[in-house]
Amino acid sequence: MSKKVMAINCGSSSLKFKLYEMPTETVMVEGAIEQVGKDDAIFSYDYQGKKHEMVQPVADHDVAVHLVLDTLLAEHVIANYNEIAGVGHRISNGGRYYSDATLIDADVEKRIDQLSVLSPLHNPVNLIGIKAVTASLPDAKEVAVFDTAYHHTMPVVDKIYGIPYKYYEKDGIRRYGFHGPSHQYIALKTAELFPNNSQRIISCHIGNGASITAIKDGKSVVNSMGFTPLAGLVMGTRSGDVDPQIIPYLEQQEGMSAQDVKDMLNKKSGLLGLSGISNDVRDLAKIAGDQSDERHERADLALKVFAHQIQFYIGAYAAELNGVDSIVFTAGVGEHSALVRQLACQNLGYLGVKIDTAKNAANALSIETADSTTKVLVIPTDEELMIARDVVRVAQL
Amino acid sequence: MSKKVMAINCGSSSLKFKLYEMPTETVMVEGAIEQVGKDDAIFSYDYQGKKHEMVQPVADHDVAVHLVLDTLLAEHVIANYNEIAGVGHRISNGGRYYSDATLIDADVEKRIDQLSVLSPLHNPVNLIGIKAVTASLPDAKEVAVFDTAYHHTMPVVDKIYGIPYKYYEKDGIRRYGFHGPSHQYIALKTAELFPNNSQRIISCHIGNGASITAIKDGKSVVNSMGFTPLAGLVMGTRSGDVDPQIIPYLEQQEGMSAQDVKDMLNKKSGLLGLSGISNDVRDLAKIAGDQSDERHERADLALKVFAHQIQFYIGAYAAELNGVDSIVFTAGVGEHSALVRQLACQNLGYLGVKIDTAKNAANALSIETADSTTKVLVIPTDEELMIARDVVRVAQL
Repeated sequence: MSKKVMAINCGSSSLKFKLYEMPTETVMVEGAIEQVGKDDAIFSYDYQGKKHEMVQPVADHDVAVHLVLDTLLAEHVIANYNEIAGVGHRISNGGRYYSDATLIDADVEKRIDQLSVLSPLHNPVNLIGIKAVTASLPDAKEVAVFDTAYHHTMPVVDKIYGIPYKYYEKDGIRRYGFHGPSHQYIALKTAELFPNNSQRIISCHIGNGASITAIKDGKSVVNSMGFTPLAGLVMGTRSGDVDPQIIPYLEQQEGMSAQDVKDMLNKKSGLLGLSGISNDVRDLAKIAGDQSDERHERADLALKVFAHQIQFYIGAYAAELNGVDSIVFTAGVGEHSALVRQLACQNLGYLGVKIDTAKNAANALSIETADSTTKVLVIPTDEELMIARDVVRVAQL
Repeated sequence: MSKKVMAINCGSSSLKFKLYEMPTETVMVEGAIEQVGKDDAIFSYDYQGKKHEMVQPVADHDVAVHLVLDTLLAEHVIANYNEIAGVGHRISNGGRYYSDATLIDADVEKRIDQLSVLSPLHNPVNLIGIKAVTASLPDAKEVAVFDTAYHHTMPVVDKIYGIPYKYYEKDGIRRYGFHGPSHQYIALKTAELFPNNSQRIISCHIGNGASITAIKDGKSVVNSMGFTPLAGLVMGTRSGDVDPQIIPYLEQQEGMSAQDVKDMLNKKSGLLGLSGISNDVRDLAKIAGDQSDERHERADLALKVFAHQIQFYIGAYAAELNGVDSIVFTAGVGEHSALVRQLACQNLGYLGVKIDTAKNAANALSIETADSTTKVLVIPTDEELMIARDVVRVAQL
């Protein structure tokens, strides 16, 4: 019997949702709220082939969830909330506790709350999403789908940090990796579309958060995020990797507290911190191209650092995989910024990568030239589908 | 007219020295004290083709310097200290102040002392070395040769961290890179020995401290160490890169102070922390190969993590250079551990790297097979020669 299953994906400043008929995986309605927390949040959704978009204040993720649910009723997508049999929530950090998706109960909520210390930008908003759904849909099965679960196949040499072993063994301080549903989707989709080029995949999930995964035979080998989603690449507002000694240095020399440093690294760094302008690649690309704007050099620098770090990880992960069959770009920036893709790939001729400028500009599925020996793909991610499948499987719907 | 010039290289637990006749670059005597700080320090030197080695207590680097100077007199290498016209000291960290070697005066000593905050394992012992020489050789010209100077050619995208721009611009918090004299020597020596394979070099300085440099046309493009010598690879006792958020986590969750964290990351991590046994690759290789030793798994893990991170940087720097002509191993481990070289290169077939097992076991100059398209070299480093040349140039001897 068919069931309606909803996937909710609360990002640091966004909410994405899809309502599915399962098991056919038919999308009934899908949408997003961007700029959550601002007065000019953008709520958009597609229903029955018609796009809707409105700008309105959305104070927080609780308001965002209720806005979505209210709209489902108002649009008559559902007649009442009981029709939704299951809801899957993407949860940033399952720490060492969860190697798979799990049904949500009070203990799971408590764990997610405790794990906020590891994902300060995400777990708290994930929890708000859960509580908002539970309040409106008390009978729906709710499932937590962890960003970290797909990466449990990482070998120990990639998981462990070079710090005393007790931290790995007792305290669970190790690389977890994130964006699991997205990278898993890329692995599946690449194998479906290009089965002969899917043994060694470098999946570049480049959005406001960004991570890269080396995938071998469908399994995650390593992801550039680490113990927390701060690590790896420069992102919208996150620093990515820095010399770890910078932190005690700032504390001892500049009197910053541990919390000050966390806030700086998570919220004031990345493209925003480098440019002093914006965390948004679209803004930066516009300003970088405008010589009359005195900020163009800083915008250009931020974009170049961003792309350079993507290149760094592609290079490192080619060594992880002993070569690469497909480099895949996905997520907001990865799917839409020809500039970032071009900059990230410009030094990769040694891997047989050649970008077709016109295809790249068109965000085509396959953006390499005919004589490129490595495929370079642009595949829209679908974390929500991965979440909906986990809901059906774990809640046995 | 020929002059005697001494190079002194104080590492965290060692002192290496060479006395040269310049400008002929003739080595009159060379030697090292290992395990400085221990009761069984090993003092060894070569003079007139004869090797000397003795085990004795060497309390600190002051004692070490005086032991070397006393020996020069006792062996009649020199008749009195006035014969030494110049002494070059390898200094770990010149911060943003020094882009080249410089004559040492009181201000320079003060700067080096201030910069100890960045290189807590090195700058303090470098200073002890300077003060000991000044006390015994008041008339010699002393020159500070900074580990960071060679890397001043790094482009900004490699120097800058993804944190707010003010830290780069005002506070000098950026990647400096280290082991400059060693990587510079490797660049020169590779170009001399294999001029057709020296355009794109990945220089792997793998000792108790370890860093890798991408070198293009003789110039440093990027080095794996960062703001301080903590960053990059796992080392003997240093962590290398970790998710930066681990640090505030340990402070907030485990009540560690900034100093506790620094001590842990610098002195209790790396091979020592991972294995729980030793910071020395020789010890670990022995135990890892001995199945009857219950510690063999941890020793094996530590070595594999170490080699895996070397592989990671070789991969990343191949992307920096758009391919690689020569991978060069140098320094204690790089020159002598066939095991680490083999593990680090085993996944690099995609770069055309093929290791000849017999040549590798013999620590041969060139350890690749005849059909390897990338050269893999083992070149003993000579930081002291680079230092002696800088003394002559800067002190105008």
